[in-house]
Amino acid sequence: MVEKRPFDVLNHSLNQSVLVKLKGDMEVRGILASFDVHMNLVIENGEELQKGEVKRKLNTVLLRGDTVVFISPSNV
Amino acid sequence: MVEKRPFDVLNHSLNQSVLVKLKGDMEVRGILASFDVHMNLVIENGEELQKGEVKRKLNTVLLRGDTVVFISPSNV
Amino acid sequence: MVEKRPFDVLNHSLNQSVLVKLKGDMEVRGILASFDVHMNLVIENGEELQKGEVKRKLNTVLLRGDTVVFISPSNV
Amino acid sequence: MVEKRPFDVLNHSLNQSVLVKLKGDMEVRGILASFDVHMNLVIENGEELQKGEVKRKLNTVLLRGDTVVFISPSNV
Amino acid sequence: MVEKRPFDVLNHSLNQSVLVKLKGDMEVRGILASFDVHMNLVIENGEELQKGEVKRKLNTVLLRGDTVVFISPSNV
Amino acid sequence: MVEKRPFDVLNHSLNQSVLVKLKGDMEVRGILASFDVHMNLVIENGEELQKGEVKRKLNTVLLRGDTVVFISPSNV
Amino acid sequence: MVEKRPFDVLNHSLNQSVLVKLKGDMEVRGILASFDVHMNLVIENGEELQKGEVKRKLNTVLLRGDTVVFISPSNV
Repeated sequence: MVEKRPFDVLNHSLNQSVLVKLKGDMEVRGILASFDVHMNLVIENGEELQKGEVKRKLNTVLLRGDTVVFISPSNV
Repeated sequence: MVEKRPFDVLNHSLNQSVLVKLKGDMEVRGILASFDVHMNLVIENGEELQKGEVKRKLNTVLLRGDTVVFISPSNV
Repeated sequence: MVEKRPFDVLNHSLNQSVLVKLKGDMEVRGILASFDVHMNLVIENGEELQKGEVKRKLNTVLLRGDTVVFISPSNV
Repeated sequence: MVEKRPFDVLNHSLNQSVLVKLKGDMEVRGILASFDVHMNLVIENGEELQKGEVKRKLNTVLLRGDTVVFISPSNV
Repeated sequence: MVEKRPFDVLNHSLNQSVLVKLKGDMEVRGILASFDVHMNLVIENGEELQKGEVKRKLNTVLLRGDTVVFISPSNV
Repeated sequence: MVEKRPFDVLNHSLNQSVLVKLKGDMEVRGILASFDVHMNLVIENGEELQKGEVKRKLNTVLLRGDTVVFISPSNV
Repeated sequence: MVEKRPFDVLNHSLNQSVLVKLKGDMEVRGILASFDVHMNLVIENGEELQKGEVKRKLNTVLLRGDTVVFISPSNV
């Protein structure tokens, strides 16, 4: 079995839909456009969610890595 | 007796079911697929739990290490 | 496809309107005048927002990077 | 008198019962199986406590060092 | 156009009136007397504000950089 | 006058009674048995206090430095 | 004009009365006896204040630098 590393998930999710949970109970959903070693992320076609509801469209958004709780390739 | 180190628990839990408690009273349960020295974790077949109830399925999810409170090989 | 990095978003947003969300549920909107590797940002013609309402004008404001949650080029 | 250092307490508590208080008003009680310089701890036969009551059994659990408030060899 | 950097705002504000927002919803207004690379700031003729009201005079005050949210040259 | 440094207070308090205030409004009182450069402290004959009342005896307890607010040689 | 740096305020306040505001809405007032580069401070003849009222006498107290919000030479 090939060894896997956490950041592989980010590599495999590039240009795909992801759900990002941030500290403070906020979420952003959209296409992962780029990331770096600090887990700073750029999401395109972004939507800010609160309690599962779309709060507003963000289009392009740069999320600061230290506010990230988790990143999950979208379930759809 | 062989000396043990904390990260041995992660090594022994690879491909096994774990319960991860995160800051902010959230938990994720699933199969530990990978980890790194920052305690970033990838969980597969993940479920997000709140107050012990499954809130939603996350399938693959990358958890940021600095939000981790504890990791426990599942009790089942 | 050319590889993209998170800070490219900041480079492309210089002298353009951005929305910055800060920890503690505060937002600042204005023209991105400069930034550095810590994500310290200078916003000109700044407006401090709370719950989507303009709270006050800030004109020039230096935002400390570690309080940033996200930066989004304005949607207008 | 021999000089003592804080981590001596961890060394002397290996394979003994300890009480660990974590940030966010949670406690874990069990046998200290291992630790490292970051104060990451492995507890075996662990019990998660809230307000002094056992909330659940955790068996083996890896506690992340930066969530630790204090570690006390059990009083029994 | 000459490249600008965030700390230029501090340089240009020396001996001028600034408004400093701190974590925990507190503000200090006064003359910026000095600063360093950690964004530690010295304010003279300082006033501590809460909800926009002057809470007390502080005269000289050293603000620790990691509590700063933003610094804005005063709007007057 | 001989120059003093903050850690001198810890040196002079070894084997003496101290009051330690921790983040989250908790206090521990007891004999300072050891400390290191991170301000990790070992307290012996420890008592955990909440709102000035003894909550429980801790005997030996290792306090993690980054949860310390202040350390004061006891007033008695 | 001679350049000033933030720590000059600490140097000039040695053996003088200062007011120190800490995270979590607590204040300590007393004579600044020593400090280091981490802004760890030793206060003598200290008083712990809450909402402007003296809560208790602390005599000598070592304040951990990362809990400091601001330090102000006393206004009297």
